[in-house]
Amino acid sequence: MTESASWSRFKTHFLSCDPVGVSVDISRMNFAAGFLDEKDADIRKAISAMERLEAGAIANPDENRMVGHYWLRDSSRAPTPAIRKEIDGCLARIKRFARDVHSGTIKPQKARRFTRLLVIGIGGSALGPQFVAMALGSTRDKLHPHFFDNTDPDGFDMVLAQLGPALGETLCIVISKSGGTLETRNGMLEARRAFEAAGLTFAKHAVAITQVGSQLDAYAVEGKWLARFPMWDWIGGRTSELSAVGLLPAALQGIDIGRLLAGARAMDDVTRTKEPRRNPAALLALAWCHAGGGRGAKDMVILPYKDRLMLFSKYLQQLVMESLGKERDLDGRVVHQGIAVFGNKGSTDQHAYVQQLRDGINNFFVTFVEVLRDRAGKSMWVEPGVTSGDYLSGFYQGTRRALHENGRESITITVPDAGAATVGKLIALYERAVGLYASLVNVNAYHQPGVEAGKKAAATVLECQKRVLDFLKAHQGQSFTAEDLARETDPALEVETVFKILEHASANPDHGIKRALTAGASVFEARYSAGR
Amino acid sequence: MTESASWSRFKTHFLSCDPVGVSVDISRMNFAAGFLDEKDADIRKAISAMERLEAGAIANPDENRMVGHYWLRDSSRAPTPAIRKEIDGCLARIKRFARDVHSGTIKPQKARRFTRLLVIGIGGSALGPQFVAMALGSTRDKLHPHFFDNTDPDGFDMVLAQLGPALGETLCIVISKSGGTLETRNGMLEARRAFEAAGLTFAKHAVAITQVGSQLDAYAVEGKWLARFPMWDWIGGRTSELSAVGLLPAALQGIDIGRLLAGARAMDDVTRTKEPRRNPAALLALAWCHAGGGRGAKDMVILPYKDRLMLFSKYLQQLVMESLGKERDLDGRVVHQGIAVFGNKGSTDQHAYVQQLRDGINNFFVTFVEVLRDRAGKSMWVEPGVTSGDYLSGFYQGTRRALHENGRESITITVPDAGAATVGKLIALYERAVGLYASLVNVNAYHQPGVEAGKKAAATVLECQKRVLDFLKAHQGQSFTAEDLARETDPALEVETVFKILEHASANPDHGIKRALTAGASVFEARYSAGR
Repeated sequence: MTESASWSRFKTHFLSCDPVGVSVDISRMNFAAGFLDEKDADIRKAISAMERLEAGAIANPDENRMVGHYWLRDSSRAPTPAIRKEIDGCLARIKRFARDVHSGTIKPQKARRFTRLLVIGIGGSALGPQFVAMALGSTRDKLHPHFFDNTDPDGFDMVLAQLGPALGETLCIVISKSGGTLETRNGMLEARRAFEAAGLTFAKHAVAITQVGSQLDAYAVEGKWLARFPMWDWIGGRTSELSAVGLLPAALQGIDIGRLLAGARAMDDVTRTKEPRRNPAALLALAWCHAGGGRGAKDMVILPYKDRLMLFSKYLQQLVMESLGKERDLDGRVVHQGIAVFGNKGSTDQHAYVQQLRDGINNFFVTFVEVLRDRAGKSMWVEPGVTSGDYLSGFYQGTRRALHENGRESITITVPDAGAATVGKLIALYERAVGLYASLVNVNAYHQPGVEAGKKAAATVLECQKRVLDFLKAHQGQSFTAEDLARETDPALEVETVFKILEHASANPDHGIKRALTAGASVFEARYSAGR
Repeated sequence: MTESASWSRFKTHFLSCDPVGVSVDISRMNFAAGFLDEKDADIRKAISAMERLEAGAIANPDENRMVGHYWLRDSSRAPTPAIRKEIDGCLARIKRFARDVHSGTIKPQKARRFTRLLVIGIGGSALGPQFVAMALGSTRDKLHPHFFDNTDPDGFDMVLAQLGPALGETLCIVISKSGGTLETRNGMLEARRAFEAAGLTFAKHAVAITQVGSQLDAYAVEGKWLARFPMWDWIGGRTSELSAVGLLPAALQGIDIGRLLAGARAMDDVTRTKEPRRNPAALLALAWCHAGGGRGAKDMVILPYKDRLMLFSKYLQQLVMESLGKERDLDGRVVHQGIAVFGNKGSTDQHAYVQQLRDGINNFFVTFVEVLRDRAGKSMWVEPGVTSGDYLSGFYQGTRRALHENGRESITITVPDAGAATVGKLIALYERAVGLYASLVNVNAYHQPGVEAGKKAAATVLECQKRVLDFLKAHQGQSFTAEDLARETDPALEVETVFKILEHASANPDHGIKRALTAGASVFEARYSAGR
């Protein structure tokens, strides 16, 4: 392509959205001249479907649910006065609660002020809060955030050690939409034990965010926790960042949630544009469609050139993959859809894997996030007339070009800074783009039928564990192989499951299971027994 | 598959490596019965090539280099006495230096003790140290580690704010094999400025790790830095974790580097096994080959079920993708090889994207890392007779099963704990597996020819910036569009590059560039001028 053709293509496919100060450049996606026209009717249909969704249609048909995350930043769009009131009321309560915590009106059991936040949640109840906490946090945070986002005992211990004596100044926010997420329940119980060990009452440091009437909600009511904030049926976990799930931790941390919401609202206004070529979310959805042929054939590599945006890709992993990764389309056909997402930050990742991106398997497209503002203050010169930010910008441009030279495609999203409004805009942009893409490929973006299978299988493993350990305890002093135990307890149990349970149980002191293995024997001859 | 067939397949393809306490299970990779036999000759050839590499052959032909990372943990295998002496001497110096820092014999300019570590490096000079620091660190670290791993001005500011007044107790380790990595140079200059602003001399807090005679080496000599440690020609950045690059930060942090090395040495012994079915690195390489057809058709999803191993996937992104992502094979044929790597940790990621893994596009295989030991102490019961670690184990098993039910493949690596020896074993296991896989697909795992293009393109952008800004400064008071400036300065400059430079420069105060745009006009009509 000649220089003038390249500049002309850039100007054509660089969409500057002036009201939000964000631009989306799809000029380095190698779609043919007619592509956008070909897809015009489809994307307009997707935009119309989104309009119905925003008006309160049942957009999640198999769960028979409305999809309301766009109402969170503009409650006047909520389909009923009751929902509008819920949203406004919740936001006012979040702001008041944060103010009262910051002022010390709401305070810990035995200390003057809350100074730490422990968010206990997983998936949609952690990825958004973590992304925003890192993107917008600083050493001046009013409450410094920590997370329990797993059921790893050692992970709990690490976080509790970091909190140390500050546990007494720690406010815990337990987040679970269903109120029954087991990792989160375990985290809550481990936290409660730590508070008790410190002579403190967990309830006096605890807040719940969950659906009214859930198990967690009942537990919080009974325990007289400091506060409860609602999750709603019409908000999915992966689009809950601008509900209490994200706003309460952010407000407590000291982040301007008004700007976060205003940014999202402004981006929503822009992404409602009916003309696809003026709609940045539509352009993203179309670019993804081009890249992967509407079948996810190419991975989405997310490279923000800004350290504090590093968790954006982890946030998008859930938003994109859980929304799009579906077995069946809306007509029930088996389609095995999805787009894999990964990435950390530039220019750091250039030193990790741009070798493969440029030279290796061409199974991806990159989305660069370019942040124009380098830092809060002025910069030093690292060379005469050159700043470290000029280098960051140069490396982004250089990588974009080096990939393009070898036929590797990229999108660039340019934002003015990495402040609260921008973060709100990025969240809203991708929420809409994912929804539009889902329409283009005809899948339900708002359910997750595949996650139940793993949970059920895990429950089966825990039941199996109980039976095997009970059997060993009932036969103290006797030792058995995994094969023995599977046969003795229930022939329906899989030996492999029994073996793995025993290997794990005998590696930890909790269940008192001993393992004996003759030197040189196969690991499958190991004998397990219950101690006294 | 019937239960007895499944158990039999598991027993056949579960390799327990007793000397290292690590097992590799490839039973859930769906290769046909004859696959391992078919590949037997190839993998034996790869193992033989590795034997020659370890003996000092030129294993990186186009750079004419030996590949010596295996000698680092067993210097008796080094091909010459001189190299052996270098390795032993360097290790002894690292241990002595760390001891002297810990004891206060080597101390900061104006404080009693070093308490913080600032590692300045990128890519291979950061990913290993970061992985190990998180995996093996604790609140009891002797020096608490921080990182400059980019050239993001705001990122520098964030880390410096975290250090705060502890900057005076901070030891800086500047790491660059070539000694000319620009991100690292910029980080060093920004750090130096922070020390100067605090009335401190950077050199009295600085250590260099680089090749003898490099630019950085000369700079450290001239500045009389605290110490210099060598990088060698025969160590690549992505396999440098067990050289001074990884060992010095780890030793200073208080990690037992003897155990790290011993773990790697023990795994090396096991992965030298000539019989492929008894060699865990060979089994990994073969499993990858099966999964992606030897063309990287499936992404490698890494899921350690242990919070502190979360950075393992980022470490492997570089090790795997930079080693395998090649345009040409060793015979010069265009092959576009590679395997994309991503993942964070289980069970957390189950809540992010197992929906897609189970139901969506089947373009991946998972590698679970199962850690048998849950935590240092005993656990509480989260339910009668059940610990949070039992849940972690149950979720791992449940996800493995849920994926398998839907024809999704997985490998499981089981390790006894997440201690220093285990981390050394994991590093050594993957270093060898990547080398063997590279042999199987006939690529050079030890060069990275594709990374130069981006660097060169970035240099072009910075030169272009200089010309454009110089032109504006020479025409103070006059304003120009991007198109004007491209034409005026040099018709060879791309307008797009000029435009992007101006948008970035005018968003920051450093260059004094002003941007003016009439309301409603196209962004391409913006006019830029140099201020006074």
